[in-house]
Amino acid sequence: MSPMAPNSVSSDYPPHLTPERLEYLISNLKDWSIAHGLAVRPAPSFVSPENDPSGVLANSAPVTLFPSLFPKSCFEEALAIQSTYNELYCAIANDEEWLGSVVQELLDIDDFVAQLWDVHIKIKNEGYVQNLSLGLFRSDYMVHTNPEDPNAGSEVKQVEFNTIASSFGGLSSQVSALHRHLLSIGAYPPETSSLLNDDTLPESKSAVSLAAGLAAAHKAYGPSKSSNPTCVLFVVQDPERNVFDQRHLEYALHSHDKVQVFRLPFGQILKDTELANDRTLLYVPPFAPDTRYEVTTIYFRAGYSPDEYKSEEYWTARYHLERSAAIKCPSILTHLAGCKKVQQVLATPHSPHLSKFLSDESKASRVLKTFAPIYPLDESEAGKEAQKLANNPDSASRYVLKPQREGGGNNVYRKAIPPFLKDLPKSKWPAYILMEMIEPPPLTNTILRNGEIQKGGVICELGVYGVCLWEANGGEGGQNKILENFEAGYLLRTKGDQSEEGGVAAGFGSVDSCCLVDI
Amino acid sequence: MSPMAPNSVSSDYPPHLTPERLEYLISNLKDWSIAHGLAVRPAPSFVSPENDPSGVLANSAPVTLFPSLFPKSCFEEALAIQSTYNELYCAIANDEEWLGSVVQELLDIDDFVAQLWDVHIKIKNEGYVQNLSLGLFRSDYMVHTNPEDPNAGSEVKQVEFNTIASSFGGLSSQVSALHRHLLSIGAYPPETSSLLNDDTLPESKSAVSLAAGLAAAHKAYGPSKSSNPTCVLFVVQDPERNVFDQRHLEYALHSHDKVQVFRLPFGQILKDTELANDRTLLYVPPFAPDTRYEVTTIYFRAGYSPDEYKSEEYWTARYHLERSAAIKCPSILTHLAGCKKVQQVLATPHSPHLSKFLSDESKASRVLKTFAPIYPLDESEAGKEAQKLANNPDSASRYVLKPQREGGGNNVYRKAIPPFLKDLPKSKWPAYILMEMIEPPPLTNTILRNGEIQKGGVICELGVYGVCLWEANGGEGGQNKILENFEAGYLLRTKGDQSEEGGVAAGFGSVDSCCLVDI
Repeated sequence: MSPMAPNSVSSDYPPHLTPERLEYLISNLKDWSIAHGLAVRPAPSFVSPENDPSGVLANSAPVTLFPSLFPKSCFEEALAIQSTYNELYCAIANDEEWLGSVVQELLDIDDFVAQLWDVHIKIKNEGYVQNLSLGLFRSDYMVHTNPEDPNAGSEVKQVEFNTIASSFGGLSSQVSALHRHLLSIGAYPPETSSLLNDDTLPESKSAVSLAAGLAAAHKAYGPSKSSNPTCVLFVVQDPERNVFDQRHLEYALHSHDKVQVFRLPFGQILKDTELANDRTLLYVPPFAPDTRYEVTTIYFRAGYSPDEYKSEEYWTARYHLERSAAIKCPSILTHLAGCKKVQQVLATPHSPHLSKFLSDESKASRVLKTFAPIYPLDESEAGKEAQKLANNPDSASRYVLKPQREGGGNNVYRKAIPPFLKDLPKSKWPAYILMEMIEPPPLTNTILRNGEIQKGGVICELGVYGVCLWEANGGEGGQNKILENFEAGYLLRTKGDQSEEGGVAAGFGSVDSCCLVDI
Repeated sequence: MSPMAPNSVSSDYPPHLTPERLEYLISNLKDWSIAHGLAVRPAPSFVSPENDPSGVLANSAPVTLFPSLFPKSCFEEALAIQSTYNELYCAIANDEEWLGSVVQELLDIDDFVAQLWDVHIKIKNEGYVQNLSLGLFRSDYMVHTNPEDPNAGSEVKQVEFNTIASSFGGLSSQVSALHRHLLSIGAYPPETSSLLNDDTLPESKSAVSLAAGLAAAHKAYGPSKSSNPTCVLFVVQDPERNVFDQRHLEYALHSHDKVQVFRLPFGQILKDTELANDRTLLYVPPFAPDTRYEVTTIYFRAGYSPDEYKSEEYWTARYHLERSAAIKCPSILTHLAGCKKVQQVLATPHSPHLSKFLSDESKASRVLKTFAPIYPLDESEAGKEAQKLANNPDSASRYVLKPQREGGGNNVYRKAIPPFLKDLPKSKWPAYILMEMIEPPPLTNTILRNGEIQKGGVICELGVYGVCLWEANGGEGGQNKILENFEAGYLLRTKGDQSEEGGVAAGFGSVDSCCLVDI
């Protein structure tokens, strides 16, 4: 099939629905969602806590009514290279010297990264007692179409690579199943059948695949050293509205692999766990204080954002877990491998780093193609190039300025960059990176969120999950020995397009699935 | 094992929970319920409609925290005789003459039964065009222990037999899975492990089994006569808070048997269906008014209660469906077979009727054992016996007086019966039946409902589902030819014991599962 210009496919998508068809679609969507746990706990702005003090209410997760159109070649490429990305980040996490040099550059501007590094150094001096590491990664992309050359075709460009707490793997399986269900019950108008059919709606197996990753780590840990029953710990935020997303992984792990899972709020770590002399991590369930479970694997769904570390005690807790014999998902080094600076260093034009970690040239070049150029704003050669681009309103209009610090600060977009830099002392420029804007094709969709329907321009972000389990220095010549490495399903997240007036509210996010098209 | 007196098992059950264990149990229960669709739409008293105008909220269905203790022998007997009950009610539904004589006696006191019969007669005169009938039955029991002889053991005694809209088959599968999940994650204290374990917590396969019944009917209907795609119609109430219970059957039918299901509100029948000349029933989906689906099977989850027939139009609608070529679940004759009067006639002491329908003596005697004696209050021999029992405060204390009319009126209990009858003109006595009280063993449990926890005395009612598909007059000598006949899982419903003060509120119902014990 010949490629089609995006507009020819998307201009009449999603299709117009009669009020009766909208009612049929929505009522089926609402019931199916709750019946299958495609749900969230309601936001306090939707249900005030005094109206549901014990928290038994739930609502359908925000979803799109239709799967969003997504270029098939982009989708396939993003999934195909996930195992290479797993390999790449596993290699980075294992190169402590290189990671240290990256962190060094951040010490002055990113206290969070510095503190994570400190934890690592303390334990390194003491000696690690667990060589196995688990990564449940998610590589996020947007589709990029060159606005100056729309016939050049589409490419996926990476937005970020998550090495900790990659979320929505539980719900994304459900939303792809929801859209396939709506298709199968005739909720979509028949005239869309050439676009929407069994072949164009890929299933996402993310929930079972990510659970399989946790099961592999649990098994690789080996038998209990303390003669206690074993378990996997999910370290979580409390409260957590997105709890069902996490529970789906737990239930898959529990029902398929018979693994006992406990949820441990980040603030309870020191209270509810203890280290044996050999640093075996023991979980003491508050409900059974006389029993002990040996923790094989710690899955972090918390601890990724600086503002979660509310006191020194939280750092003590992170240290306490990191030095234990449990397999961490992720280890601190793996966590650090996901910091923005690493992405920037890899994606800086003419960078030698990627080929250092991926010696296979064809693999490296496929990964490289997914990078949007990212420049430092420092006095390096690439940095000087960046300063020129950023200060010229014409060229700046293709860029976004992002703070390097993890989890903090607002982005500055396009023509707002030159005046922003004018007001910023030059000594502070290196705290930012300049990234080429990804220009997604114009798309529309309809989102149902808290019962409100909003239709309008949307932006879609594809996340591809990856599972990687490896033994640091376990291979030949002290290389990583990779025990598991597989692509683990996908997520599409769709939010309102900021530029659209009167349409979907900006930032109005939802979970979505792909309808693959030849764009 | 030797039988134990009920109190020795149940006095320390359910076990005491520490606040921490209660918290662990409840938080797991709440999340598991929503993740698995063990849910209901909230009552208006819990979430007012203006706070959720589009109805996206749901809450955990009211459930017990523990499976209730249930005598194993009673449970096994109730499940074992379900296929005989299916056979019995299939025979009754097929004996139009006999059913007619029962209905005759109700004409003056029960307008609903009379109107159902009228619909049947009109269609009989015209001629039926569908000989296949489907029953998704539920036989409800309570455990009876003779209070005067507690060592006599326990028996199941039938409360009623449902031939239409037998509910909770979708949720009961989920609640038995919930209790097994709570067991498997260690939520129940270890000291209960001799009572609560994999062997004592029977799974209920009701959702898939009932869906298999619908699938069998759909298949037996044969190919489309109208060259349209086929479907199964669920005739439903609107609004329906218990919608997920029904949806689970729909999803099982759809995913396992690829059957298209539509939900049709009782009030929309005449608008959305039409009969072809050969009385093939065609469904016209409001969302696709130019298409037609041929209806193979109508599953009534509405139309069972007189107050649903708000105008003559509802009777026209019922007639319209009944005369169609679709398989009815149930047909009007099957619906009538479930009326209280039939149960009373079968259970009247010395009645000859049971053996008429169940010629196999051993089968009949097992069914007979599950009947609590029921007396008419008329001038028959049994009726005169009943009048004596009812007017004597001593003997009356073992009975309940129930109105014969379907879906109407309050029961009168025990010592309240003699004064009630004193004030009632004797001409109205035949509108009531006298039923021996079933005396359930004293049990306690804890119920979570709308986030509120209530602990106290409870009464449990076991429902056993049955599927029966038959061809009227299709066998030898014009007998029924039974095509499918199987037990289809169970339900335990548990509500507050009225006599208990300060405990579980009376009528505070919940879904539950069984923990089988040797009582």
